[in-house]
Amino acid sequence: MDRRKFIKTAGVVAGGAAAATTLAAPAIAQSMPKLKWRITSSFPKSLDTLYGGTEVFANYVTEATDGNFQVQAFPAGEIVPGLQVADKVTDGTVEMGQTALYYFWGKDPAFALATAVPFGLNNRQMNSWWYHGGAKEKLNKFFEKYNFTAFAAGNTGCQMGGWFRKPINSLADLQGLKFRIGGMGGKIIAKIGVVPTLIAGGDIYPSLEKGTIDAAEWVGPYDDEKLGFYKVAPYYYYPGWWEAGPMLHVIVNNEKLASLPKSYQAIIETAAAYANVDMMAKYDALNLPALRRLVAGGAKLSPFSQDIMDASFKASVETYKELSAQSPAFKDIFASMADFRRDSYLWDQVAEGTYNNFMMAEQRANAL
Amino acid sequence: MDRRKFIKTAGVVAGGAAAATTLAAPAIAQSMPKLKWRITSSFPKSLDTLYGGTEVFANYVTEATDGNFQVQAFPAGEIVPGLQVADKVTDGTVEMGQTALYYFWGKDPAFALATAVPFGLNNRQMNSWWYHGGAKEKLNKFFEKYNFTAFAAGNTGCQMGGWFRKPINSLADLQGLKFRIGGMGGKIIAKIGVVPTLIAGGDIYPSLEKGTIDAAEWVGPYDDEKLGFYKVAPYYYYPGWWEAGPMLHVIVNNEKLASLPKSYQAIIETAAAYANVDMMAKYDALNLPALRRLVAGGAKLSPFSQDIMDASFKASVETYKELSAQSPAFKDIFASMADFRRDSYLWDQVAEGTYNNFMMAEQRANAL
Repeated sequence: MDRRKFIKTAGVVAGGAAAATTLAAPAIAQSMPKLKWRITSSFPKSLDTLYGGTEVFANYVTEATDGNFQVQAFPAGEIVPGLQVADKVTDGTVEMGQTALYYFWGKDPAFALATAVPFGLNNRQMNSWWYHGGAKEKLNKFFEKYNFTAFAAGNTGCQMGGWFRKPINSLADLQGLKFRIGGMGGKIIAKIGVVPTLIAGGDIYPSLEKGTIDAAEWVGPYDDEKLGFYKVAPYYYYPGWWEAGPMLHVIVNNEKLASLPKSYQAIIETAAAYANVDMMAKYDALNLPALRRLVAGGAKLSPFSQDIMDASFKASVETYKELSAQSPAFKDIFASMADFRRDSYLWDQVAEGTYNNFMMAEQRANAL
Repeated sequence: MDRRKFIKTAGVVAGGAAAATTLAAPAIAQSMPKLKWRITSSFPKSLDTLYGGTEVFANYVTEATDGNFQVQAFPAGEIVPGLQVADKVTDGTVEMGQTALYYFWGKDPAFALATAVPFGLNNRQMNSWWYHGGAKEKLNKFFEKYNFTAFAAGNTGCQMGGWFRKPINSLADLQGLKFRIGGMGGKIIAKIGVVPTLIAGGDIYPSLEKGTIDAAEWVGPYDDEKLGFYKVAPYYYYPGWWEAGPMLHVIVNNEKLASLPKSYQAIIETAAAYANVDMMAKYDALNLPALRRLVAGGAKLSPFSQDIMDASFKASVETYKELSAQSPAFKDIFASMADFRRDSYLWDQVAEGTYNNFMMAEQRANAL
């Protein structure tokens, strides 16, 4: 073959290969497009459990796509203030957010059902209701008008009832108390004589110290320890009946989500599920050691009295009637949750609850 | 430009592009190689919860890789018998398996700790111990000599204590009873006077009917219902203290796993986590409706008596001493589990247990 012919042939061959590549490349590009997305969290970096969930999620998406779908995580306030996460995902300013959707119950009380409502579901029940009890479908239908889709992506487990400057032995001791408590819990606790106030995390300690407020709830031992409340309000009550199994979510703007190949959509869903189980597992490993340190540091641990629990429960029933009259979405989704809750707490009394109560007795008897 | 020069130039250009493609293509191929793997389950198709976990896992891996990494799921017996899953993953006959690793505790009792041991951890504790309590690391170190890596991929929650032909009111009623029960539970229950027997799922019903055996345990209401035991052994006891939170796993042959790009490894891990949370959620949604149907069909539901629980617990403590003397791996990993269990059941008595017990009382009072 002469050189010219060779070059010509090589050119044709090369051209053919190039053409084939041109055909093949978009197929590859379609299934693994290079993307850089941002996820903005409602939580600060210092809450390594809650904000940590955003990082776990973002890292898995990036890793699972070999870096083609890069998701960068931002703590609250860096690109979006913590309480504007839903709005900024709705309008597409950021593609994704990680948040507790009950922050936005001012828009519609139905938002709270995605996270936790007082005397609602525990962690396992919340997962079951979400994945297999119709909640995912119902809530995402509701979120359509906010232009995002929510994926379960974390849970704190049952929270604590908070830190009080004085002992609270009965409902009478709660009267007129200024209690830092967020959301629907505040609405309910107001019905039993408490004055709910909402102040930012950083202002709680000085307010408790000065006595501007009498009590404050935050999350649980591991997160609470960081804020040092035990030094100024050592009476630590449980349970935080307003947050028995709060679910965190990754939310994704609907147009952005629809623009993704199915593979990336599947990766978002699985990475969120990983973050979901991982966060609960992390809290369960960290809370007890933290509680030990808190008690050693002077925290005085007690359950809320029965009359406080009973009055609060009664107030929650009234509140749900009011909210159901107010919001059709709340009415519909709350009814689904309430049905699920009734069945779940019946089932829990059989194998699971009986076993756990036996094991708790063994623990108290120092037999474990 | 004359035609010849153009062709030459084009050839060079095309060649250049081809060369660039040659460099780029393997990078893409490396990150998303076309693979067809098989996963073989220890469970039959009829157990749609347990075997369903294999399908959930396989479908997510396939979807997340846009079909490049195709995982095909096989129920027990189709390509590998259910109780040979570990062996066939060890020797690389199949790349992956889905199983309850305690099936293989005959090789070493440490295997049981990956799934459940009597009076062990509940579902949430098992997840916490696995993901954040050191279990994943310790057990996968142990599994190195079996040449596979395990990923948490499901849970049944606390199982039921099984079906009995006659009422069992106390420890005395258990003496000499022939009880179909698997694994370590059988070893322990033998210490309190029961005769454990292991027969395959399909043979249980006729054996109970004829009275060849007096009792049988299986899983929980949803799975048990399918086998119809309530018709021939209607006394249904709880809890199944030998399986309080059995964890299922996806296991992957170590050489095969190492051959995968990091992205595929990450996808396996997240897809397994999705299957993990999904299976528990599914059981929690299906068990109560099934229990209602069973009770309507004549099942008589009771807890095991306190003396049975106490004697079984005592027998388990003895058994763990014996097994720890026998297997250094069991000794080390059991100690880690026992520490975690002690702390977890202390923590459970604070917010979570108090809340759940309050809610169970509300359920009994018909207030939910």
